[in-house]
Amino acid sequence: MQRVYLDNNATTIVDPKVKEAMEVYFCQQYGNPNSLHEFGTEVHPAMRIALDRLYAGIGARDEDDVIVTSCATESNNTVLKAIYWEVIAKTQKKRILTTPVEHPSVSQVCEFLQNQGAEIVELPLNQDGIVDLETLKAFLEPEKTALVSIMWANNETGLIFPIKDMATYTHSVGVLFHTDAVQAIGKIPVNVQEAPVDYLSFSAHKFHGPKGVGGLYIRKGAPFVPLLHGGEHMGGKRSGTINVAGMVGMGLAMELANEALPYEHTEVRRLRDKLEEAILSLSDTMVIGKREHRVPNTILASFRGVEGEALIWDLNKYGIAASTGSACASESLEPNPVMVAIGVDRELSHTAVRFSLSRFTTEKEIDYTIEVLTNSVKRLREISSTYTKKRR
Amino acid sequence: MQRVYLDNNATTIVDPKVKEAMEVYFCQQYGNPNSLHEFGTEVHPAMRIALDRLYAGIGARDEDDVIVTSCATESNNTVLKAIYWEVIAKTQKKRILTTPVEHPSVSQVCEFLQNQGAEIVELPLNQDGIVDLETLKAFLEPEKTALVSIMWANNETGLIFPIKDMATYTHSVGVLFHTDAVQAIGKIPVNVQEAPVDYLSFSAHKFHGPKGVGGLYIRKGAPFVPLLHGGEHMGGKRSGTINVAGMVGMGLAMELANEALPYEHTEVRRLRDKLEEAILSLSDTMVIGKREHRVPNTILASFRGVEGEALIWDLNKYGIAASTGSACASESLEPNPVMVAIGVDRELSHTAVRFSLSRFTTEKEIDYTIEVLTNSVKRLREISSTYTKKRR
Repeated sequence: MQRVYLDNNATTIVDPKVKEAMEVYFCQQYGNPNSLHEFGTEVHPAMRIALDRLYAGIGARDEDDVIVTSCATESNNTVLKAIYWEVIAKTQKKRILTTPVEHPSVSQVCEFLQNQGAEIVELPLNQDGIVDLETLKAFLEPEKTALVSIMWANNETGLIFPIKDMATYTHSVGVLFHTDAVQAIGKIPVNVQEAPVDYLSFSAHKFHGPKGVGGLYIRKGAPFVPLLHGGEHMGGKRSGTINVAGMVGMGLAMELANEALPYEHTEVRRLRDKLEEAILSLSDTMVIGKREHRVPNTILASFRGVEGEALIWDLNKYGIAASTGSACASESLEPNPVMVAIGVDRELSHTAVRFSLSRFTTEKEIDYTIEVLTNSVKRLREISSTYTKKRR
Repeated sequence: MQRVYLDNNATTIVDPKVKEAMEVYFCQQYGNPNSLHEFGTEVHPAMRIALDRLYAGIGARDEDDVIVTSCATESNNTVLKAIYWEVIAKTQKKRILTTPVEHPSVSQVCEFLQNQGAEIVELPLNQDGIVDLETLKAFLEPEKTALVSIMWANNETGLIFPIKDMATYTHSVGVLFHTDAVQAIGKIPVNVQEAPVDYLSFSAHKFHGPKGVGGLYIRKGAPFVPLLHGGEHMGGKRSGTINVAGMVGMGLAMELANEALPYEHTEVRRLRDKLEEAILSLSDTMVIGKREHRVPNTILASFRGVEGEALIWDLNKYGIAASTGSACASESLEPNPVMVAIGVDRELSHTAVRFSLSRFTTEKEIDYTIEVLTNSVKRLREISSTYTKKRR
């Protein structure tokens, strides 16, 4: 059976070039980079190249830090808990401004820190499903605020937040800014000079790198406390023996992802748009968020009368992988929070299905998906009592 | 040039069988295990096998937790900070009992927590270089103590601590017990039923698994707070997309390491003893710690008049990898803390060199090492002003 992977916002295939680059660090160059002997030092050149690629990939300056972590969840926990120890626990700035649609690795940390005395304020989304600059300005009280933490692009809708404007404004009033850029890297240009964030999290496996490795950008001078104390790796900012293969893989994956950005914005977008048009050509369907506000690979669509989960199962039977939302909360039966925030009615919010493409997605796969999807929606509506009732 | 890797306490070669088992999870079965579709679920059987191997490998019961982390540094940070939030911050039990020879991922966390109100007490080592049960009994005040954290085997000397007796006693007086078992797994039997610890940390890359993945055992009912909050992976105890390849690799590595224990205790021990005898047959040398108290693969030796680092460099020129101590602090010029603790004079403590073997070490490699080492020590002593002066 044909298999079509359209869940690239959950995780991605490792680029075969990335896997190849990692190969040598398991059974050949397996030394601990902290060791003084040749088994330790022979991996340094590749690690330097990887780090250079990460710096270049997000436009970091030499004096800034980019540390290798185990995933974006670790990066997000690191930033928020560092702010807790360095700002919230020590000063009168107790507040973190965030959004109702952050990944759980931000929102759940906020909930934890709230129990330790932090004040968490969620900025309301506007009609477009994002937080706009005016809202941030209206809510941000610099003397009370330790951190603003807003994702660069949403994992479920693909909607892009105006990070450049928000980081610039937040900086101008002397408040720290963190962005979870997990869904932005490899989909849109990400540059920490243009968008002056203080902290930025990313994860290799979302841009065709391996699972188990992520990164955290820390602007020079930004307050910091390690989440992992220990043997002073990464300049004392993240201890633990460095995952050499993972670091090398992530560096190359970052470079390849940035090289592929033009392709992402032409071909991936074209295939996404083709699938989206086909969805919209069916009756009683909608796609969440204006197309021009979204990353080029994502569609969050609703099919009235069709349970999202039923459609996922139907597609899965035909080898097509899509999602009802974030893989990180895929067992939840709550309606999609973005859809709730932008005012989609509750019935429709249960019908959301996310399709997320990548540069490995082919036209043949999209054509096949359109065919299967069209038939599935038709079949599921025929057996849906609510949908047929409504149509009568 | 021949290369001989005798720094297996710093990191190990990935067993080729482990690498092979991981292969498929990069470019073929790359799904996110949290996804509902087949790309997600097809990796579940391998993950279950891996978890079964980890449980079996340390004797965990079904009702206990074994969570997959990114390294033992993360596991150690997780336990100590969980105890901070759940016990130290909430109750009158402010104390952590530990030792002066823990890995930095324990000792540095303790230092951090001391600044947050924890009371850290280091138990003195006895003449054998370990903490004995009587010392623990003398120091342990149950009503004041939140946690006892003592390593199972020391990374530098290979000395084994009496964890079974200490955990049993600590449990009997109602105090929690954590052990960093990084240097024990694969070298001696480790069983959490026989030694009733509440928490146990381990790291795959120390037993021929990949870097970037570790584990944490948590006894059922033991207090816990995640270090990584987020998408509720690992039953809510450790969030972050699961490193499937790493988890599968670690599971197999654990099984292979335990299968190889008899070989470790016969052949690896024999080769270690052969190298140790050769070292002791040189004049003015010593090996730290009684042989019967050590794991079978480790020698920490001193060569009077020879700087440890000079010897490392000399060996490295001939392709032999040894260490002056922990790779996690290899740039430190402090004398070895274990040697200081057991009363080795300061001059000698700067001459310590660690040789750590593995099941991949061959007799030919040991013979070659003995030859090179003998010549190096002779040569370095000839050019050592302090040594020749003393001999006159």
